[in-house]
Amino acid sequence: MSTQMQQDGAQPAAMAAGHGLDWPALFATRAERMKASEIRELLKLLDQPDVISFAGGIPDPALFPAEEFGAALTAALSGDTKGAALQYSVSEGYRPLREWLVTRMASLGVTCTADNIVITSGSQQALDYLGKLFLSKGDTALVGWPTYLGALQAFNAYEPNYDRLTPLANRPAADYRETAAAKGGAVKFAYASADFANPTGETLSESARSSILDLATELDIAVIEDAAYQSLRYDGDEIPPLLALDIARTGSIEASRTIYCGSFSKTLAPGLRVGWVCAAKPVISKLVLIKQAADLHSATLNQMAIHTVASRGFEAQLAKIRDSYRARRDAILAALDRHMPDGVTWTRPNGGMYVWVTLPEGFDGAALLAESLKTERVAFVPGRAFFADGSGANTIRLSFSCASEAMIDEGIKRLGRVIGRG
Amino acid sequence: MSTQMQQDGAQPAAMAAGHGLDWPALFATRAERMKASEIRELLKLLDQPDVISFAGGIPDPALFPAEEFGAALTAALSGDTKGAALQYSVSEGYRPLREWLVTRMASLGVTCTADNIVITSGSQQALDYLGKLFLSKGDTALVGWPTYLGALQAFNAYEPNYDRLTPLANRPAADYRETAAAKGGAVKFAYASADFANPTGETLSESARSSILDLATELDIAVIEDAAYQSLRYDGDEIPPLLALDIARTGSIEASRTIYCGSFSKTLAPGLRVGWVCAAKPVISKLVLIKQAADLHSATLNQMAIHTVASRGFEAQLAKIRDSYRARRDAILAALDRHMPDGVTWTRPNGGMYVWVTLPEGFDGAALLAESLKTERVAFVPGRAFFADGSGANTIRLSFSCASEAMIDEGIKRLGRVIGRG
Repeated sequence: MSTQMQQDGAQPAAMAAGHGLDWPALFATRAERMKASEIRELLKLLDQPDVISFAGGIPDPALFPAEEFGAALTAALSGDTKGAALQYSVSEGYRPLREWLVTRMASLGVTCTADNIVITSGSQQALDYLGKLFLSKGDTALVGWPTYLGALQAFNAYEPNYDRLTPLANRPAADYRETAAAKGGAVKFAYASADFANPTGETLSESARSSILDLATELDIAVIEDAAYQSLRYDGDEIPPLLALDIARTGSIEASRTIYCGSFSKTLAPGLRVGWVCAAKPVISKLVLIKQAADLHSATLNQMAIHTVASRGFEAQLAKIRDSYRARRDAILAALDRHMPDGVTWTRPNGGMYVWVTLPEGFDGAALLAESLKTERVAFVPGRAFFADGSGANTIRLSFSCASEAMIDEGIKRLGRVIGRG
Repeated sequence: MSTQMQQDGAQPAAMAAGHGLDWPALFATRAERMKASEIRELLKLLDQPDVISFAGGIPDPALFPAEEFGAALTAALSGDTKGAALQYSVSEGYRPLREWLVTRMASLGVTCTADNIVITSGSQQALDYLGKLFLSKGDTALVGWPTYLGALQAFNAYEPNYDRLTPLANRPAADYRETAAAKGGAVKFAYASADFANPTGETLSESARSSILDLATELDIAVIEDAAYQSLRYDGDEIPPLLALDIARTGSIEASRTIYCGSFSKTLAPGLRVGWVCAAKPVISKLVLIKQAADLHSATLNQMAIHTVASRGFEAQLAKIRDSYRARRDAILAALDRHMPDGVTWTRPNGGMYVWVTLPEGFDGAALLAESLKTERVAFVPGRAFFADGSGANTIRLSFSCASEAMIDEGIKRLGRVIGRG
């Protein structure tokens, strides 16, 4: 017990003085799967001024529309709306924002109504609520190897098993079913990020998207589409979201199996915590009940401010951030070409915030990070945490969203040196 | 399936056209316990101008410090803090707010540090996260008969059983343990609101608080103290929170078993969704991990604004709202004395927002509400939803926080008429 509690932050001195409870014995079994993430510990490194960081996957605060938010908040807190802006509100979210999102979703090929949308506190909350809605203990979620670490953390609270999302052509549906049943549950959903995924930066082709829908149809499961980065395309043509392709097959959102999770965190600002889910009404109405029971509603004022800023200039904001991030993406790819030793490979993303680097077999990302911080003062995220099966030790994730172009070249040069010595 | 899906909001027409999925078959078993609440449906009635409503338990928006929030938000979005105000932030919450709360908790008799505090999106979210932390399927939570409906809804997601929280003197600890074990789990915590509880408005005496701590100590379980209304005392002396009494017994917060859930919703404004949990570090550090996985953090800007407004004038705001609500409490008690028929009894709260009315046996609060809306245009909340065992049909909850004194007398007169006819 003492080891567990020390990991959890209790001080040995306080323990000795206080005769604390045996908390782990009281906790639910799921608490065993709640562990501090490497990314979170690494975020602390961003405060050290001499470290060049490719670690945190966060947007550049210089690109936030701060003035626009200031004006929107001031307006919301004056006149007729001021009481409502600070009052309790409905769990499904602020109706004008949901109606704006109907138009936004239509521009992506998704025909829906405001009743197909619930507002969440970022898309991270959507993942938590979807885990809560679908996963009984022992059920199986299909995820990529690697996948978004935050999705694994959100789902872990519901004690699922994970299986690898691969095309039907490579593995029959019966095999997924039997594997899940052997572990005491059923396959409930496939989770995927189709555009500029965290951590790889990769985009699924239209045929890869179709293949996921084929598998989901064959297994009769849901598809959770994490679209957090979808608006951050820097070149190439847009590919319809999984939800749009699903609707094109089935005829309507009510007949579709795809649950789209969107976010304003990467486009407007993450600190307001506003995202949304768009899906068939039976899913949305359950999510509304989950939200009501879990936090009543997302902050009213924040939803109003997001609505004002989005409806006044979402496309202009997208154009601004795409230009900035495109230049940084170009800079990091050029620097990698210039400085990486032979045997190192990496992705070439058309958008998003990440480049995924594969090191020669035998490298360990975590050990490399320790060495890199000590000798070269450069930070990144070791890749293993993104693999549900604990593989991927020889991978690392680089984020280019917060580094200046000059820093990018210097940082990648340093990284090349530490890998070259490894 | 069709009945279930229609309840969930899917239109029969869409079903017929769309061949929707059998969603309930995919949902986790816990989804069966997610039902729309009577309170939520009733909130829709507040929009009808001729209804006098004692239904929603919401603060009066005229009392919100809207100007102070406007100034705080404008300041946060100017100068040095503007990037941070809109950026991702740490899961445990904004440090200056946590430090202000250390001082606030000290004024309540709770000595702690900022590491004993995590910021949540209202105290509702704290209840969800504590359910997640403690309750495996089949475990038992001890709650009052009646208790806060939102606590039952939050805990229900984790599929617990409920047992009635009664003093040790009336029921031996072994009986609680055996009852829980027979249902396939263990007793994990006692949940209680010590001051001006929702729905009864009642306050636990210091000896009743001690008795809860005695029971929890005997059972070696946690105590969840829901302090959402604690600051709303209109007369009488303050009684130390359960957490303060626990610390007085055990010597330190690290040795205590009480988990205090606070909220700014009833004092400053609910729409910003800011609350907190104060407890021993092993609990807080797990809640931080839960929050990280569930929604990353509460909105940064909102925490900054709450900190500014609270640190500039929390006591003055409390004085203002106490004066207003005290007058309404006096008005509703006087009106009940004046207009209630014989055989009806009610609580006489020293604070909070609620009076709890017990009607003669044979009355049904839900039927009375239907009749009352039809004939007298007065709304309230039927009491049965607050009972984990489904009893309490002859009780109703009246909220006086949002009604003017003149409306209160007229509304209670109408209510007296409809009960008198019943």
